[in-house]
Amino acid sequence: MKFNIAVLAGDGIGPEVMEQAQKVSEAVAEKFGHEITWKPALTGAAAIDAVGEPYPDSTHQVCLASDAVLFGAIGLPRFDNDPSAKVRPENGLLQMRKQLGLFANLRPTFTFPSLLDKSPLKQERIEGTDLVFLRELTGGIYFGEKGRRDGGETAFDNCVYTRVEVQRLAKKGFELAMTRSKRLCCVDKANVMETSRLWRETVQAMEKDYPEVEVSYELVDAVAMRLVQWPNSYDVLITENLFGDILTDEASVISGSMGLMPSASMGSDIALFEPIHGSYPQATGLNIANPMAMVLSAAMMFEIAFNLPEEGKVIRDAVNKALAEGIVTEDLADGGKAYGTKEVGDFLAANI
Amino acid sequence: MKFNIAVLAGDGIGPEVMEQAQKVSEAVAEKFGHEITWKPALTGAAAIDAVGEPYPDSTHQVCLASDAVLFGAIGLPRFDNDPSAKVRPENGLLQMRKQLGLFANLRPTFTFPSLLDKSPLKQERIEGTDLVFLRELTGGIYFGEKGRRDGGETAFDNCVYTRVEVQRLAKKGFELAMTRSKRLCCVDKANVMETSRLWRETVQAMEKDYPEVEVSYELVDAVAMRLVQWPNSYDVLITENLFGDILTDEASVISGSMGLMPSASMGSDIALFEPIHGSYPQATGLNIANPMAMVLSAAMMFEIAFNLPEEGKVIRDAVNKALAEGIVTEDLADGGKAYGTKEVGDFLAANI
Ligand SMILES: CC(C)[C@H](C(=O)O)[C@@H](O)C(=O)O
Ligand SMILES: CC(C)[C@H](C(=O)O)[C@@H](O)C(=O)O
Repeated sequence: MKFNIAVLAGDGIGPEVMEQAQKVSEAVAEKFGHEITWKPALTGAAAIDAVGEPYPDSTHQVCLASDAVLFGAIGLPRFDNDPSAKVRPENGLLQMRKQLGLFANLRPTFTFPSLLDKSPLKQERIEGTDLVFLRELTGGIYFGEKGRRDGGETAFDNCVYTRVEVQRLAKKGFELAMTRSKRLCCVDKANVMETSRLWRETVQAMEKDYPEVEVSYELVDAVAMRLVQWPNSYDVLITENLFGDILTDEASVISGSMGLMPSASMGSDIALFEPIHGSYPQATGLNIANPMAMVLSAAMMFEIAFNLPEEGKVIRDAVNKALAEGIVTEDLADGGKAYGTKEVGDFLAANI
Repeated sequence: MKFNIAVLAGDGIGPEVMEQAQKVSEAVAEKFGHEITWKPALTGAAAIDAVGEPYPDSTHQVCLASDAVLFGAIGLPRFDNDPSAKVRPENGLLQMRKQLGLFANLRPTFTFPSLLDKSPLKQERIEGTDLVFLRELTGGIYFGEKGRRDGGETAFDNCVYTRVEVQRLAKKGFELAMTRSKRLCCVDKANVMETSRLWRETVQAMEKDYPEVEVSYELVDAVAMRLVQWPNSYDVLITENLFGDILTDEASVISGSMGLMPSASMGSDIALFEPIHGSYPQATGLNIANPMAMVLSAAMMFEIAFNLPEEGKVIRDAVNKALAEGIVTEDLADGGKAYGTKEVGDFLAANI
């Protein structure tokens, strides 16, 4: 098959880890007889410096014309001081999600047996954890009306959801649950928020269409607790934008493998794949960043965007092999030999 | 001194643990020459059953006429099915907070050396943790306008904050930081929410009044992570209502001593003290519930509402003694001898 893939490498270590994901993807393409055309485009601080905005229309056009988007990481320290400034790398992220209609953010948290000791949790708590969050990404308080009144003395943010928005996210949740252990947890704050009550009643009404899926409803505060206590009790969790922001970050650190976690953002059309780690500016150009999360994001791209599970699997196998043989960057080297970003990428590509 | 204390025991194990807190408080009163008049009043499911609403005006009047409120726990399983029903124990809680003007919820998370092995976190992560959340409790999305439009197809919740609301909460945070390690962390989502930007600019403007306090600003998603990774890096954290709901629950389980954690809710006038655990309905009447969190809430009452730190300290010392000598309920007994709720209460009272 032939694919056009938009490459939004971004800032900091983004370009370095992206290079490895491209290298590994090329190895996969060669093995399975695919042809990839890479379409690089600017985003984040790199785009602000070049054209004055973090998600320029030229980049949007490249994404629209592609079969999938690979995204590195964005953000640089010089933007950290003023989180309210309009021209910030992160604003490009929100704009991109909205304009590409990426309403479902899929974030798995799983464990690598060899990395269990990196988890902040005791082994019996974290062992066997394999959960997936589906976070709504284009609605809620992120995109509702917000502003000031009373001469700036009062601020407001509106959280809004429509039934259709909930349904399309929940549908993906039910479908995902069907491919896994058939357990779905809807996370809300239905004892306080009207939007949560809409979430809950909408999901409840969909239960009859998926009789095999066992659905539970939990409050966001209870989930924040249980994620630390018994993360291995969860399978698929669906939730709204802000709760998802908080809980997926919490979930990401419990495994101890945060540097390895990929993610996917899906719409009705295009999908985007990115590591959950940040742009790690201090490491830029040092050839020390761990490329595995970016490479595993490429695996998700083959699986989800191109529906090619075999291609995804060979990438995952290569990562497992590297971990088993200790071909890892310094974050995982534990005082042993640390390989460079590029060398890990070379090993992965050679083992496809 | 003479005190009137409103006693809102509530549901489930509430009355049992309350009895122990009263017993211990009486022992303190006797030792220090105080006189306590207890003013029992209905709340929660008990109030719904008796008078049809969870926070009747009669109860409100009792609270207003008291020097402090001791609160047990509310909620029963028969109310769990429909979180949107208007007549629910929890609605009484929200009403009570608003009507009593309890705008600041203080929730400490600390460790008992003898209980470190109960933490889900590895010992080196949890050791030394001693943090306090100050959660805003009468504003934000909890109390903003909420409802439906488009014939029920669209739901909305408005999050609103005024500068004055932020200032009075932050003031308590700065003052608390001054009595501790002089570090204050303001938790917000200023890269997305306008209310968070108001929080941040308001706290920033107050920094000059507390030159000794070192203030940091962190995003709620980052705090959700760091609470699991390095909880012992925090001291005082201030935040808005919904973030506080999620993060204080997350914080409560990391110590492994959740069953022992007290809390205080303060306004400009009256203050309320309650354990953070729930009503644990399955244990009702079995004399197995751990009364220590309720007893420690009474300690906070002496310290905060009556400004009597010595009285608080003797209660804390008694709890530490009980823990050291293994005079504990089954949740802490670790297969050893488990004492009853009442017996633990007797031991604590006898050791004042
Ligand atoms: C950068 C920020 C706007 C963003 C969000 O809150 O969605 C980030 O935290 C994320 O989760 O991707
Ligand atoms: C019961 C519920 C309304 C309440 C809240 O969300 O404030 C509870 O979770 C709490 O934290 O006291």
